[in-house]
Amino acid sequence: MSAVPWVEGILHGQGTVQRRAMAKAITLLESTRTDHRRIADALLNTLLPHTGRAFRLGISGVPGVGKSTFIEALGIYLIERGHRVAVLAVDPSSSVSGGSILGDKTRMEKLSVHEHAFIRPSPSGGTLGGVAAKTREAMLVCEAAGYDVVIVETVGVGQSETAVADMTDLFCVLQLPNAGDDLQAIKKGIMELADLIVINKADLDPDAATRAQAQITSALRLLGLHGRAMADDPTMPRWQPTVLTLSAATGQGVAAFWEAVQRYRHLQEVNGALAERRRRQAAAWMWERIDAGLREAFGQHAAVRARLPALTEDVLAGRVVASVAARELLHVFLD
Amino acid sequence: MSAVPWVEGILHGQGTVQRRAMAKAITLLESTRTDHRRIADALLNTLLPHTGRAFRLGISGVPGVGKSTFIEALGIYLIERGHRVAVLAVDPSSSVSGGSILGDKTRMEKLSVHEHAFIRPSPSGGTLGGVAAKTREAMLVCEAAGYDVVIVETVGVGQSETAVADMTDLFCVLQLPNAGDDLQAIKKGIMELADLIVINKADLDPDAATRAQAQITSALRLLGLHGRAMADDPTMPRWQPTVLTLSAATGQGVAAFWEAVQRYRHLQEVNGALAERRRRQAAAWMWERIDAGLREAFGQHAAVRARLPALTEDVLAGRVVASVAARELLHVFLD
Repeated sequence: MSAVPWVEGILHGQGTVQRRAMAKAITLLESTRTDHRRIADALLNTLLPHTGRAFRLGISGVPGVGKSTFIEALGIYLIERGHRVAVLAVDPSSSVSGGSILGDKTRMEKLSVHEHAFIRPSPSGGTLGGVAAKTREAMLVCEAAGYDVVIVETVGVGQSETAVADMTDLFCVLQLPNAGDDLQAIKKGIMELADLIVINKADLDPDAATRAQAQITSALRLLGLHGRAMADDPTMPRWQPTVLTLSAATGQGVAAFWEAVQRYRHLQEVNGALAERRRRQAAAWMWERIDAGLREAFGQHAAVRARLPALTEDVLAGRVVASVAARELLHVFLD
Repeated sequence: MSAVPWVEGILHGQGTVQRRAMAKAITLLESTRTDHRRIADALLNTLLPHTGRAFRLGISGVPGVGKSTFIEALGIYLIERGHRVAVLAVDPSSSVSGGSILGDKTRMEKLSVHEHAFIRPSPSGGTLGGVAAKTREAMLVCEAAGYDVVIVETVGVGQSETAVADMTDLFCVLQLPNAGDDLQAIKKGIMELADLIVINKADLDPDAATRAQAQITSALRLLGLHGRAMADDPTMPRWQPTVLTLSAATGQGVAAFWEAVQRYRHLQEVNGALAERRRRQAAAWMWERIDAGLREAFGQHAAVRARLPALTEDVLAGRVVASVAARELLHVFLD
């Protein structure tokens, strides 16, 4: 038996035993205590060889767009076809709002009680980077436990879409079926991240949904939002962001959505983009955590703390040049 | 007389005396020698009270779009109206290509020899952040010398547009007048930065230019690329990114371009966005330089250097979890 706790339960446990091990492990990962952190790191490295085979699906959309209904419909659809589905979240505001949307499991009535689904609300507190890192680690626990579809949802506060796109294989944006000028609600910069755009609630106004689909498709083409170029072979076909219409409430379009995901996955496996994306994500994640750790040490340094507030004020007031202030603070920290 | 060199020449010099002081000061700023850096910092802080009154205009566009011709036409137009125009560049590839586009001053025949223009090629070598920081500091020298319009151009390699947008008051993207599917050449993410989009070479195919203008305008609206929200007062009118057609070669549209810039400047002064943007830029610049300095110290640390290559390989190969590797390296660095 492994010296690291929860490993046996996660890898080989059944039913409640496995779920309990997963929940305990994720709670351990979320702890900030140094001794917990040491065990958590050992746990992660032990689980790592058993991860990576799941498909990681990022889902974003403004409140009211129907994310929970969509995840419920998709999750049940997938479980009926033999998949095991984990649902995680990145919600950096959850410490303020008193819990992520996923904390309210009643929104996913069937999925939340299904034995082949595992739902975990967003870790709370800390920076977006910290919250995202914990979700990322929780994803590894789910994969090691044999969940082969991991859905990560975000409500889209601040840069949280970028964080979710950076930890998933495919990033999907849900959009309401209003067209033309009403589409002004699309969040700036988010379309650049999207591999799939879903016009949800298409049943409410099918014509508007179809118009929105055509308009967004042409705007994406116009503004060059064409997916990521292949570094190795620019002639290899690559995925073009695609716009679908769907009704999560009636279930119409859910099968077509999953077909599109499968097409994406197949193409990106053949052209190498998926492996490249995961390698790039791993490297970027390591450096993001290094940068965050360096900043944290910098911010806790006594002499830096003594100097930073006044110097920041000087920079904002135009009394000291920003790069000069940076050099002064670095000198204080590094000497 | 000031103990810091070049100050008198920059602030009060005339003609060649001032230009020579500016050139020497910028060369000093670009030096990486520690003793030079110390004098350079004193120089910057001495000049700082005399800066900030210029309008800072960022210009980007792919090679062949006509940036040099446009800057030449705009520069001469402004000088004829009593302005003094400085042209700087951010080209992180200049050390490879053997000099920025601006090194070839023959591309700006009239402007480069005009007594009210100051043209300086991109600093070469180093990271994008380093190159951008030097251009930013050179901008302060130009402003202290009384140049009231500072143009910063970039050819758009990697993230250089973001760097230029982050140091200017208005970021302008030049675009060729092809429409529809041909517009696929627009670089992903760049429209999000743009305050003004200029369809150049409109004289070659006026109809195509007008169509491109309409299409880009509607795509910008559709994808929510609507300029920055006002933090303090969301009801205050704010700038909407605007698409203009222009021919730098014939001069048609240059006056309308400058009128749009003036409208932008007036609105952003009234609603406070310009001051807010500059404050945000100053703070972000300070932290960007701190992060870069922390990373540099991290990368030069002997124990980190000994451990980093193997650990990076482990992360990329999926043998070590990225966040665990980051914690190990931070431990090595900070202990």
